[in-house]
Amino acid sequence: MRNDLPRVVIVGAGFGGLMAARALARAPVDVVVIDRHNYHLFQPLLYQVATAALSPADIAEPIRVVLRCQRNATVLLDEMIGIDPEGRAVKTRSGTAQHYDWLILATGSRYNYFGHAEWPSRAPGLKSLDDATLIRRRALLAFEEAEGASDPALRQRQLTFVLVGAGPTGVEMAGALAELAHATLSRDFRNINPQTARIILVEAGPRVLAGFPEKLSAFAVRSLERMGVEVLLDTPIEAIDDHGVTAKGGRIEAANVIWCAGVEASPVAQWLDVPAAKGGQVAVAPDLSVPGHPEIFVIGDAAFVIGPVGTPLPGLAPVAKQQGHYVGKLIACRVRGDPVPPSFRYRDEGALATIGRHSAIADFGWIRLTGFVAWVLWGIVHILFLIGFRNRASVFLNWVWAWVTYGRGARLITGEMTTLAVESRSKEKQEA
Amino acid sequence: MRNDLPRVVIVGAGFGGLMAARALARAPVDVVVIDRHNYHLFQPLLYQVATAALSPADIAEPIRVVLRCQRNATVLLDEMIGIDPEGRAVKTRSGTAQHYDWLILATGSRYNYFGHAEWPSRAPGLKSLDDATLIRRRALLAFEEAEGASDPALRQRQLTFVLVGAGPTGVEMAGALAELAHATLSRDFRNINPQTARIILVEAGPRVLAGFPEKLSAFAVRSLERMGVEVLLDTPIEAIDDHGVTAKGGRIEAANVIWCAGVEASPVAQWLDVPAAKGGQVAVAPDLSVPGHPEIFVIGDAAFVIGPVGTPLPGLAPVAKQQGHYVGKLIACRVRGDPVPPSFRYRDEGALATIGRHSAIADFGWIRLTGFVAWVLWGIVHILFLIGFRNRASVFLNWVWAWVTYGRGARLITGEMTTLAVESRSKEKQEA
Repeated sequence: MRNDLPRVVIVGAGFGGLMAARALARAPVDVVVIDRHNYHLFQPLLYQVATAALSPADIAEPIRVVLRCQRNATVLLDEMIGIDPEGRAVKTRSGTAQHYDWLILATGSRYNYFGHAEWPSRAPGLKSLDDATLIRRRALLAFEEAEGASDPALRQRQLTFVLVGAGPTGVEMAGALAELAHATLSRDFRNINPQTARIILVEAGPRVLAGFPEKLSAFAVRSLERMGVEVLLDTPIEAIDDHGVTAKGGRIEAANVIWCAGVEASPVAQWLDVPAAKGGQVAVAPDLSVPGHPEIFVIGDAAFVIGPVGTPLPGLAPVAKQQGHYVGKLIACRVRGDPVPPSFRYRDEGALATIGRHSAIADFGWIRLTGFVAWVLWGIVHILFLIGFRNRASVFLNWVWAWVTYGRGARLITGEMTTLAVESRSKEKQEA
Repeated sequence: MRNDLPRVVIVGAGFGGLMAARALARAPVDVVVIDRHNYHLFQPLLYQVATAALSPADIAEPIRVVLRCQRNATVLLDEMIGIDPEGRAVKTRSGTAQHYDWLILATGSRYNYFGHAEWPSRAPGLKSLDDATLIRRRALLAFEEAEGASDPALRQRQLTFVLVGAGPTGVEMAGALAELAHATLSRDFRNINPQTARIILVEAGPRVLAGFPEKLSAFAVRSLERMGVEVLLDTPIEAIDDHGVTAKGGRIEAANVIWCAGVEASPVAQWLDVPAAKGGQVAVAPDLSVPGHPEIFVIGDAAFVIGPVGTPLPGLAPVAKQQGHYVGKLIACRVRGDPVPPSFRYRDEGALATIGRHSAIADFGWIRLTGFVAWVLWGIVHILFLIGFRNRASVFLNWVWAWVTYGRGARLITGEMTTLAVESRSKEKQEA
């Protein structure tokens, strides 16, 4: 690394951060990518890890491998804990201060439990690989514990899954859990019938997949119901405890509650000491820089940007990727002294959401697709966008195999599983 | 499950336990398989998970899937904590007592640290999937921390791997770590050269792979040294601390120590309250039953059996499988009232050990193979023996891909990684 080159620090190696790094590949700068993890995570398929269809390695690629051939890029496994805008340095957990000339904050979002401190442990969200393997462990253990339980009420509670929030993650999880319970596991137990498992999708608002046109939302509900998912609309959750949820209109006894509701931006506004917009995001200038700091940019889920149709841009991969590309090019132009591109403009690439084994919805504005055609399109798009050839082949193989057999490739209960399983069961015995 | 049928309880779903269950498929009995995990683990490939070549799901198959079509078999996720031979019941952690008419104990072995209570946390062994992902996390973090370290001594310590014990696991781990450091990671870092990593295989005895003929041991040492592994023979370890090991003849500074030395049987003798043979094993009768208890059998690593050539049978998969098959058939005959087979006789199927990317040794008694031919044979045998088609295809695909690219499919640092990484680095900074 040459010390005389301008130093671009990128925090976060998600879709936005990696795209920014790549856009700077030929620029006369040193690029430093800082991430808490050693891998880039393909978040759109995270729900498949949580439902035992894919392995963690299928949807994650080491950042060092992604940037291996980009000689001006350095990767640091570290966590940002603060920013010193005056001294132009990022503070990290390891204790080093990373100096920057340009800073790109692509730190994404995290789950928002609306101030309920006790909800995260009872209803884990789905943001990281560790979240996904935790949800997988709990879901698979629930079936094991139901198999070992003798009290019918206790058994049904173990077999009840409540998904809070009917956005894309909630809908995908509901469909995948329904398949797991009603097809994959159906012949594997002797004392319980996994097909009696209840998958309940609870949404506070009036419809599922609110980002899609109403007709597509209605199609999604019909698809889910055909798969055996119970959809409860206009049903805000009031409380979550160890035995279930209390919602408007009643109580649901459920051992498995998964949080798919709100997200908020990572605390970028706080780090920068600027006022936060809706959801903790930073309202950035038209060139995605932080007002008052032309050398600091915020992209992806953490940025508040009004889109071409007058609404805020959603927290989706295409938004982050386009913003990363734009900011990378902008910095390259500034460093070279070339004319800079005008303000960032989002190009809508359409939206896709999958529901189950053979159903999805797609909205490209000029055309809307539902059902099997949309599902095939969804599969192709997601495999093409996976970073790294091997993962594509492995995911494709797993999907074909799962499609043919209804099998699941990654039905492992790992971690502190045993203790958790048997102790909670023996605890319940004592209670019963 | 019909309650009037004799009940066969099998504890442990490794190679021996599963083979016993299958041998009872057509017998008029109820089979209950109890295991602490929900999967059967293909232990011979565990070192490939520890060195980031395979994912956990590639070498593990849910026990319920393996036994799905065997209608007389029930699977329980639970842990045996004691046996009541008088009452014919197995005590489990969940608090249930499992009655048996016949009991097969196939509980395997665990690492033996020879009474050093502080060694397991410093030098993890390789027995379970959780062990493998722990070793993978530590090894990958070591390279990350070396990349962030400025002190050359500290950096070299992070890049030094000591493998204690040169049995099959130690030799396989050494070869796989050498490939990881010297090929896979070679272009991924900017501040360190992973090729400077030292892989040191330390053996207390006079040669590696002591179960093989001397000529093959010598071949293995030459193969390892060509791969850059340092082999230290006649070098017992005297102490292990957080910064390395003290061996006879000197001190090795190493952040990574992996225990591949002795194993001991699971505490079956203690549970049964019978005297333990060498290594905690139970010396069983010629029909593998426990002396004084013709209804209790011990098979696999936990059983002490003298083989046809007068030496004790080793703790290998073929031994466990043949014993499981024999005991299953024996019980089926007893239940039906058929004449029982004579005493168990081991049929030697030969032994294989792999060293690296293109070298292995094979000993079939009448023929000995070394090098590439043995390696191809090793690959074919291990893929054929993997349970479940999908795993075979997935492992084969990963191997072909790794072979062509030197890439590793599962280079993920998951779990409490970040904290571990950056905190230990900041701690070292303070010390420095």
